[in-house]
Amino acid sequence: MGKIKVGIAGYGAIGQRLADGVVLQKDMEMIGVADLAPTLAIRALYEKGMPYDLYLVAGADKSKFDTLGIPVKGSFEDLLDKVDIMLDSSPGGVGAENKELYEKKNVKAIFQGGEKNDVANVFFHGYANYEKGIGKDYLKLTSCNTTGLIRSVDCLDRECGGIEKVAITIIRRVADPGDYHRGLTNALQIDKVPSHQALDLMTIMPHIEATGILVHTPVTHGHIITVTATGKQKITKDMALKVFMKHPRIRVVRIDDGFLGNASFFKYARDLGNPRGDMYEIGLWEDSVVETGNDIMYAINIPQESVTIPETIDGIRAAMKMQTTREEGTNETNKYLGIKNR
Amino acid sequence: MGKIKVGIAGYGAIGQRLADGVVLQKDMEMIGVADLAPTLAIRALYEKGMPYDLYLVAGADKSKFDTLGIPVKGSFEDLLDKVDIMLDSSPGGVGAENKELYEKKNVKAIFQGGEKNDVANVFFHGYANYEKGIGKDYLKLTSCNTTGLIRSVDCLDRECGGIEKVAITIIRRVADPGDYHRGLTNALQIDKVPSHQALDLMTIMPHIEATGILVHTPVTHGHIITVTATGKQKITKDMALKVFMKHPRIRVVRIDDGFLGNASFFKYARDLGNPRGDMYEIGLWEDSVVETGNDIMYAINIPQESVTIPETIDGIRAAMKMQTTREEGTNETNKYLGIKNR
Amino acid sequence: MGKIKVGIAGYGAIGQRLADGVVLQKDMEMIGVADLAPTLAIRALYEKGMPYDLYLVAGADKSKFDTLGIPVKGSFEDLLDKVDIMLDSSPGGVGAENKELYEKKNVKAIFQGGEKNDVANVFFHGYANYEKGIGKDYLKLTSCNTTGLIRSVDCLDRECGGIEKVAITIIRRVADPGDYHRGLTNALQIDKVPSHQALDLMTIMPHIEATGILVHTPVTHGHIITVTATGKQKITKDMALKVFMKHPRIRVVRIDDGFLGNASFFKYARDLGNPRGDMYEIGLWEDSVVETGNDIMYAINIPQESVTIPETIDGIRAAMKMQTTREEGTNETNKYLGIKNR
Amino acid sequence: MGKIKVGIAGYGAIGQRLADGVVLQKDMEMIGVADLAPTLAIRALYEKGMPYDLYLVAGADKSKFDTLGIPVKGSFEDLLDKVDIMLDSSPGGVGAENKELYEKKNVKAIFQGGEKNDVANVFFHGYANYEKGIGKDYLKLTSCNTTGLIRSVDCLDRECGGIEKVAITIIRRVADPGDYHRGLTNALQIDKVPSHQALDLMTIMPHIEATGILVHTPVTHGHIITVTATGKQKITKDMALKVFMKHPRIRVVRIDDGFLGNASFFKYARDLGNPRGDMYEIGLWEDSVVETGNDIMYAINIPQESVTIPETIDGIRAAMKMQTTREEGTNETNKYLGIKNR
Repeated sequence: MGKIKVGIAGYGAIGQRLADGVVLQKDMEMIGVADLAPTLAIRALYEKGMPYDLYLVAGADKSKFDTLGIPVKGSFEDLLDKVDIMLDSSPGGVGAENKELYEKKNVKAIFQGGEKNDVANVFFHGYANYEKGIGKDYLKLTSCNTTGLIRSVDCLDRECGGIEKVAITIIRRVADPGDYHRGLTNALQIDKVPSHQALDLMTIMPHIEATGILVHTPVTHGHIITVTATGKQKITKDMALKVFMKHPRIRVVRIDDGFLGNASFFKYARDLGNPRGDMYEIGLWEDSVVETGNDIMYAINIPQESVTIPETIDGIRAAMKMQTTREEGTNETNKYLGIKNR
Repeated sequence: MGKIKVGIAGYGAIGQRLADGVVLQKDMEMIGVADLAPTLAIRALYEKGMPYDLYLVAGADKSKFDTLGIPVKGSFEDLLDKVDIMLDSSPGGVGAENKELYEKKNVKAIFQGGEKNDVANVFFHGYANYEKGIGKDYLKLTSCNTTGLIRSVDCLDRECGGIEKVAITIIRRVADPGDYHRGLTNALQIDKVPSHQALDLMTIMPHIEATGILVHTPVTHGHIITVTATGKQKITKDMALKVFMKHPRIRVVRIDDGFLGNASFFKYARDLGNPRGDMYEIGLWEDSVVETGNDIMYAINIPQESVTIPETIDGIRAAMKMQTTREEGTNETNKYLGIKNR
Repeated sequence: MGKIKVGIAGYGAIGQRLADGVVLQKDMEMIGVADLAPTLAIRALYEKGMPYDLYLVAGADKSKFDTLGIPVKGSFEDLLDKVDIMLDSSPGGVGAENKELYEKKNVKAIFQGGEKNDVANVFFHGYANYEKGIGKDYLKLTSCNTTGLIRSVDCLDRECGGIEKVAITIIRRVADPGDYHRGLTNALQIDKVPSHQALDLMTIMPHIEATGILVHTPVTHGHIITVTATGKQKITKDMALKVFMKHPRIRVVRIDDGFLGNASFFKYARDLGNPRGDMYEIGLWEDSVVETGNDIMYAINIPQESVTIPETIDGIRAAMKMQTTREEGTNETNKYLGIKNR
Repeated sequence: MGKIKVGIAGYGAIGQRLADGVVLQKDMEMIGVADLAPTLAIRALYEKGMPYDLYLVAGADKSKFDTLGIPVKGSFEDLLDKVDIMLDSSPGGVGAENKELYEKKNVKAIFQGGEKNDVANVFFHGYANYEKGIGKDYLKLTSCNTTGLIRSVDCLDRECGGIEKVAITIIRRVADPGDYHRGLTNALQIDKVPSHQALDLMTIMPHIEATGILVHTPVTHGHIITVTATGKQKITKDMALKVFMKHPRIRVVRIDDGFLGNASFFKYARDLGNPRGDMYEIGLWEDSVVETGNDIMYAINIPQESVTIPETIDGIRAAMKMQTTREEGTNETNKYLGIKNR
């Protein structure tokens, strides 16, 4: 099998990171990205020398790019002619429109969490249901919170005798660094129950009952979720920690080591030299794990900008049948992204 | 019985509100407040005409008050000579020192949450253990979060067949409006488990198992706590709501009515014309109540500056044997504070 | 002259405060407020017993009010039939539409800063151009920042030999307490120069050249403006302070006294017992006044929710010819609002 | 001349970036960094494979590093034996203590802004007074705000006929991303005038009169300063822009291009792939430049974590006589840091 050819629709916060992640996969070829306007992201792509090509979606004004000297390789359809699979990180709803083109051009696609579930054959998570994605044409990824949450629940479910029920509290970051259009100032805002993340978890893992409350908070560096999980049998703190520590996409940390909150992960990723200060792993505080009756409670940190990148790449592997088991697929993604057991 | 004579030590955020609350009790007489320096709170007291007297604690520099023309009635000991009971809202640790004077002067006292439990005979909550405070010399109030949390758990416990277990997530406001010395900027900060509020709940209600995770957030208007409560028997949403709505110190609200988050309660209290924009009731979102298996989950809002005022006044009633049952004691407090069933 | 009958259109942040302010004027009668929906503000009006009547604007669904038991006195036109003058604090643009009704009903009106200047005969400020408003039918008030800024520049201009030029930096609070729809999170956002406040100042005081830069900041309690003013002759710090201290609507404070920033004014107003924690005066830091060459530089605090109330009431006095000089008009307003020289 | 050997004292926010910057200088050799405890920064250094060596300052507990497997190369004195010059970014005050060791070991040093001026022979800025640093043993760098401010004032001063006076308003970010110990929540905090940055500018450029007001704001991504500069002769917007655009360490941007505020620079630097999302250039908004009388007003953005790195490296070049003119010295620094005219 030659390299799988990948394109990206929508070069925003997620699209940029998907592109960066695909570039690292030695068995994939990053063909190009498609967008509408010369945003800061596109200007930065240009200033750093166009490491991959730019295509324009319908409605784009090419003259704006010409004025800035930004080279345009072709149209969205031109891009589709060159790729095996598209990662669609367009604004919510646009992906569903794009799907008509994907069908026409006979190109597979993976949609991000903003689309409705029925845009895809499978609602996908690399660890929880990799096998369901194998060979499918259209996958939809879980959202950032759900992706991270499921990592932690799935591994408990598999290795601690099964999970029956989870109750979550999502302390949601309200904007990304650099956002001005969706902030919140000195307020906590609550959503109606149940949170969609709990519903989504039940779609992916239908044997678990889940509910949750979501509260928006005026910060930009990572959601925190507290999880109260009820096992089919008693799960001790030691059992849970052992499972969490073994998971390559969960980074178990301690407050005493300096991980005081969500911003510590961002700082640490910057200090590690990770591009954009991104982290693929969720954080899990060892000092937050506590038994309560037969339940186990713990807190995780979700790096909202980058957490879905690995599972999306898992999705390419499944959809393209590059690897046909969950272990092989996620291992390959992890290897190329530099995610390793610590 | 004549009016009970009350003094306040420490005219900070809590002390000011205790004084305002005592003034409203027709069966109490507000004698005076004691403080150390001409803070903004003291300057405001002066600008509005000294509705009650000011006494100075040891170490205060009277000349600073003289320069500003602020009248000083006497020393801390002078104040103690005039009162039956002191409400001690001094900075944490100072209350324990003051206690020696209270003992010497044979004055009862109620300490706020910042002191250690052993400063008092009883760790007190007006609704949960009023009877334990009757006639006692020294009470310590639960902290703001614990006070509000216990209101909601106590009424479920009494009226829905008993509570076995609660797991809480405290989304804590990190500073009060006007604070500059203890802020947090663009970060969520997590504490080690279990939160002291869960431990405190178990001290007050030892038949319940409790644990919880606390996350600090950069806002000033009210904590939000999510509670997952396990009943001895199944508690439905309807059962819980009925109980919550009956509680005079719980205000059940709806997101659709405009209570979008913690800041809405502050706005609403300002709009009501409440002094300082304070609210004595905790908020409880009807749209947050959800059943999960046999558990019931819900979210409450804690107005941190004012929530402990009613229970502290309950404490005066208990310690001074003004009323000898929980119903009578809390009813009198509610009547004078204007807290009514809605 | 009997009492002047006043109505309010739009019972939002400004409308509520206008109503509260008019109630205090012994020579005015607060007839009622008109609004569209049972917002939190209206619910609070109801919960506190309808101190004034409620009328519904076109498009309102009366059944929603009926369900809640909120009494409705009549329609917007009914209100217009009863008043001499309307204070229009409707959302931006609606005031211009309302004006047709005002003309039809032969009712005077004062519009808030959100409307275009041409809605009115005069762009009005109680201290800077009271006389221009006398007897006029339609006034438009300066916005909150401009109102406060002009207070400080106008008094320097009048009493220090004339101002030639001002350069301002507006450090703007981005939302009011209780807002969720227009926040900003962990970002400073800059506007194109010149700020409209500088342009507005020049409209009111055409003999002064003004420009400025505005930066939005994620806080809710008061704008801060730094002003660099160039006098026709040298203005010393002492000269400026003397003038500022004499102004009843400027509160000169010191950092060392506890006024550390914008939130201190809000805290102090709450401690004073001011309804809603409002303050009519702008703050001016004595420790911010500094000479620079022949210029004088200083910083002021603008309580955005309440600062325009006095000048709006001045506007009623001018438009209704209740007082025909600036001194008399502003003095009456100050007297009834409790604004006094300190 | 062989490569200049450089060491770093204090591996915090600045020390990490100094180390990263020195590594890029082909005519320097990065010998090692010295610190006290296994902070997140040190843990990240270890996780990325110790690209340079670690030494421990007096008081460090080596066993903590051993437990974590972090290799320690030697003591602070061992480091001093190997280097020509130290960059001292220790906490404020520690640098002055370290100086005794530097003198004893006959090692030159450059101190950061937290130290007192008398720690050094020269208060240094690469563009404003490079020549004064040539061959000196001890330099002290200007602080982050002053460094960026002087860049903009110095170039106007040199190329527009001289600057007489500047009045600044500093809208200061209060913490760095990942800080928990020095935040501010929903408040603007003001300092007494004049700001130290204005005083520092006058120390470096004694022919200019400067003053300013500083206001702290609860954000983490970059200070914004507004500058009103008075030229000896009229400076037009065009003149100023031409000069700013020519400066390699000033990045002139437009709001319409997406640079809406301070967080845009951080986002853009992340998108550029700059390590840690850092930017060496200050930002300057073309849409903020405005003439006011004979003065020119404009706003700049100061990336507080990284802005002093280039000027510190200029300092090495001056102190070590690597280049003996301002042009040559700053050009070499720019070349190796990838700062170029755009």
